[in-house]
Amino acid sequence: MPSTALTFASVAEHRAWLATQAPLPRGFRVGATRFPFVPAEVHKPSAMTLTLIALAQPTSSFAMMFTRNALPGAPIIIGRRRLAADSLGAVLINNKISNVCAPDGEAASEALCAGAASILGLAPAQILPCSTGVIGWRLPVEAMLGALPQASAALQDASILPAADGIVTTDLYAKIRRRTVGAGSIVGIAKGAGMIEPNLATMLVYLLTDLDLPREVLREELAHAVAGSFNRMSIDSDTSTSDTVVALSSRAVPGADRAAVRAALTGVCMDLAEDVVRNGEGVHHVMRVTVAGAPDPELAATVGKAIVNSPLFQCAVCGNDANVGRLVMAIGKEVGARRAGTDLSRLRLTMGGLAIFGDGVFRLDPEVEAQLVAHLHAAELYASTPPADGLTFVPSARYPRHERVVEIGVDLGLGPHSCAILGADRSHEYISENADYRS
Amino acid sequence: MPSTALTFASVAEHRAWLATQAPLPRGFRVGATRFPFVPAEVHKPSAMTLTLIALAQPTSSFAMMFTRNALPGAPIIIGRRRLAADSLGAVLINNKISNVCAPDGEAASEALCAGAASILGLAPAQILPCSTGVIGWRLPVEAMLGALPQASAALQDASILPAADGIVTTDLYAKIRRRTVGAGSIVGIAKGAGMIEPNLATMLVYLLTDLDLPREVLREELAHAVAGSFNRMSIDSDTSTSDTVVALSSRAVPGADRAAVRAALTGVCMDLAEDVVRNGEGVHHVMRVTVAGAPDPELAATVGKAIVNSPLFQCAVCGNDANVGRLVMAIGKEVGARRAGTDLSRLRLTMGGLAIFGDGVFRLDPEVEAQLVAHLHAAELYASTPPADGLTFVPSARYPRHERVVEIGVDLGLGPHSCAILGADRSHEYISENADYRS
Repeated sequence: MPSTALTFASVAEHRAWLATQAPLPRGFRVGATRFPFVPAEVHKPSAMTLTLIALAQPTSSFAMMFTRNALPGAPIIIGRRRLAADSLGAVLINNKISNVCAPDGEAASEALCAGAASILGLAPAQILPCSTGVIGWRLPVEAMLGALPQASAALQDASILPAADGIVTTDLYAKIRRRTVGAGSIVGIAKGAGMIEPNLATMLVYLLTDLDLPREVLREELAHAVAGSFNRMSIDSDTSTSDTVVALSSRAVPGADRAAVRAALTGVCMDLAEDVVRNGEGVHHVMRVTVAGAPDPELAATVGKAIVNSPLFQCAVCGNDANVGRLVMAIGKEVGARRAGTDLSRLRLTMGGLAIFGDGVFRLDPEVEAQLVAHLHAAELYASTPPADGLTFVPSARYPRHERVVEIGVDLGLGPHSCAILGADRSHEYISENADYRS
Repeated sequence: MPSTALTFASVAEHRAWLATQAPLPRGFRVGATRFPFVPAEVHKPSAMTLTLIALAQPTSSFAMMFTRNALPGAPIIIGRRRLAADSLGAVLINNKISNVCAPDGEAASEALCAGAASILGLAPAQILPCSTGVIGWRLPVEAMLGALPQASAALQDASILPAADGIVTTDLYAKIRRRTVGAGSIVGIAKGAGMIEPNLATMLVYLLTDLDLPREVLREELAHAVAGSFNRMSIDSDTSTSDTVVALSSRAVPGADRAAVRAALTGVCMDLAEDVVRNGEGVHHVMRVTVAGAPDPELAATVGKAIVNSPLFQCAVCGNDANVGRLVMAIGKEVGARRAGTDLSRLRLTMGGLAIFGDGVFRLDPEVEAQLVAHLHAAELYASTPPADGLTFVPSARYPRHERVVEIGVDLGLGPHSCAILGADRSHEYISENADYRS
C-alpha cells in the first residue's frame, strides 16, 4: 500500500505529483511517438504510440516475468528467449495491438527489433519487444518501422513520464512510483486497466534502477516483489496474454544493502499494483481484503480473490450498498468448492473496522448499516453521471482523487496464514468500456 | 437445449405457452399468497410471497440436492436432515430473504414448518422449508405464520403456475417445463436470475411427477439430470448459499421405462437450465460453448466456464462486438492456470459455425467480422434503452423473445472428451440490478 495517503484535487495537481516521481535513474533514456494507422482486420482509422526505453550501455542485469496464460503473445514468446541473452540494450513497446495469435506474429516483432537495433547501434537480440492492445490482430509493421526514427529522436534522460504516458491503452492516467536507495533510485511505471488478474506478472510494468545489482540478485528480488504485489490483485479476474514485468539495472551507481533494495523494490511494486487497481476500467472503489486465520497461504489468497472477483459483491460496492451477505456467499463458494467439509464456525468479518459477523451469524441493524454505507461513500473515487447518449458511460474522473479504500477483514479461524488482496468494484463504466473496446 | 426453437411476440403469447406446460401431475396441489412486511435490519416496507407445494399423500419418493457453498442457509441445513426422513408431505417456499447466517435461522424455519404442518395435518419433519433472497437478514416469522392460512386456502390441483410465479425474486418471468412419460408426466419450475453458478444443484428448482418411481431411482436419476444441466451453466460465477433442487413423486400412476424417465427428466432439467440463463439478470445473449477435444471431462467443463465467466468476453458479446481475441485469452487463462505446459497448437475455434482460429493463429478479415457481428445480433434478446433517470437500467423485455443463442465451438485437440456450457453476457441491466438489489 502507498506509504502516504495522497489526495489530488485536479488533473494538474496529479501531474505535478507524477513529475516528482519521474526522474530517471542514471544510465537510461526514454522517448515516445504517436502515429496514425489502419488495422487490417477492421478498416477503422486508429493511432498507436511507440515507446523506447534505452540503456546508455547494454546491461547483463535484467529480469523479466511473463504471463502464465497458455496462449501468450509473440512478444512473450520472444521475451522468454531473451531471458537467456547476455545483455539487453532497449525495450520497444507499442499499444493498441497486442500481437497475440496473429499470423506471422513473431516475425513481425523480430522485424521491429531489427529496425530498432539498427537505429540504436545494437544487435536485434538486445531489444525486448512488448505489445498491448487488441488480441488477434496483426501489427502494422511498416507504419511502426516508419515511426521508429521519431521515437529514437525523442529519447531524453530527464523524465520517465513520456514512457508512462506512451504505454497506456484504456488507462485514465499515467502511473509512476519511485524510491531512492543509497546513492541510486528505483523507478517503475505500469500500464493496465482491464484483463487484470495477473498470474505471475502483470500487464506491462517497467522497473528501472541505476543500482549495481547482479542479474541473479535482480531476478530474485523481482520474483519476491511480484509475488506480494501484482500477484495479489484482480480487476476483472481475466489473465492477459501479454502480462510482462521487466526490471533493468544500468549499474551506474554502487549497489545498496539487500534489505533496503528489497524494501524499495517491493514498495514500488505494491504502490504500482494499487495504482493499477485504482485506475482499473470503470473502478469507483478499490477494495483491500485482508484474509487472516487461513490454514495455508493458498486458501488465504483464493478466498481474497473470490471476494474481490464476485460480480455480485462488486456491484453492491459500486452502489455503496452494504450487501455484506454477498461476502459470506463468496467465502462459502470458494471454501465449499476447494475445501469441502471445512468448519467455518469461527469465521469473523469486519468492514471498515466494524465487526459484522461472528459465532456463525451476522450482527446487522440500521445503525451498523449506516456506518457501513458511510465507509463505502468515503472510499468512492467518483460516482456515475448520466451519459450524453443515454447509454455510453464515461468515467467522470481523469485522475485519482484519493487513496482511500474499502477495508474488508476476514478471519477464517483455521490457522496462522494471511494475505492481502487488492480488487475493485464493477460499474457501468466497465461495461461501456468493454462492450465495444475496439471501436 | 429446448427441443423446439420457440419465439414469442409478447408477454401474453409467452404466458399462453407457459399454460401449456403448467398442468400438474396427479397427486399434487400448489398455492401461494403475497403479504407485506418490514425487515428488521433495514426499515423499508417490502412484500413477500409464500408458496406451498403439497402432496395428496406424504411420499417416500423424494430427492434433493443442495448447494456446496460452505456457508449454506438454515433451510439447506434442515433439508439435509430431511433427506433421511421416511416421507415428505409438502414444501414451503419464501422469497425476499434467504435465511442464511441470520440469528436463530434454524429455529425460524422449523417454526414455519410446524405452522404449516398443523394446517396441513402433517408432522413438522414432513415439511421441507426453502428460502431465497437477501443473505444475512432474519425471516419475519410472525408475518409468515399469519400468511400461512391464505397460502393453504389457495391450494389447487390444476396448474403449477402460481408456484412458478410465487418463487421468483429478480426473475423477469416464470419458468416451467413439462414432459409426458407413459401414463404420467414430469413438470419442473425454476427460480434463478443471479448468484448462479451452481455447484451440484441450482437456486430453487422443483420437479414434480406422478410416475411411481422408488426413492433410490428418483435420487439416481436426479443426480444424473443435474450433472448435465444445472451444473453446466453460469450467469455470474457466484454460487448461491441456497441452491436447491427437489424432485417429488406422488406415485399416482405406474412407473415407466427407465430410459424414457431419464430422457424426460434430463430434458426438463436442460430446458429449465437454459430458461434460467435466458432469464439471468440483465442477460441480452445466451451463450452455448461446446468444448471438444479435451483430455478429460474436468478440463472441458472448466474451459467452457472460463469463457462464459470472462467479464471481458461477456461485455464484448453484450455489445455485439466480435472481440474473439478475448476467447483466446479466456482459454489460455484457464489452461495456463490449471495445466501449465499444455500444448495448444491444435486449438480450433468457431463462432456461429464459422471457423475463426486454427494452426495457432486467427483468420480474421472485414468479411468474417461482418458475419460474426450478424450472428451476435441474431442471438440478441433485447438491447439496452436509455434509462429514465439516466443511470438505472431496466430490461426492455419482460418475456423471452426467442431461443437463439451465441454458438461457440472450442476444439482443444487434446483428447476425446467434450462438454456444453451455458452462459450469458454482462450488461448495464446487471449492474443496475445488483448495485442496490436490497432497496
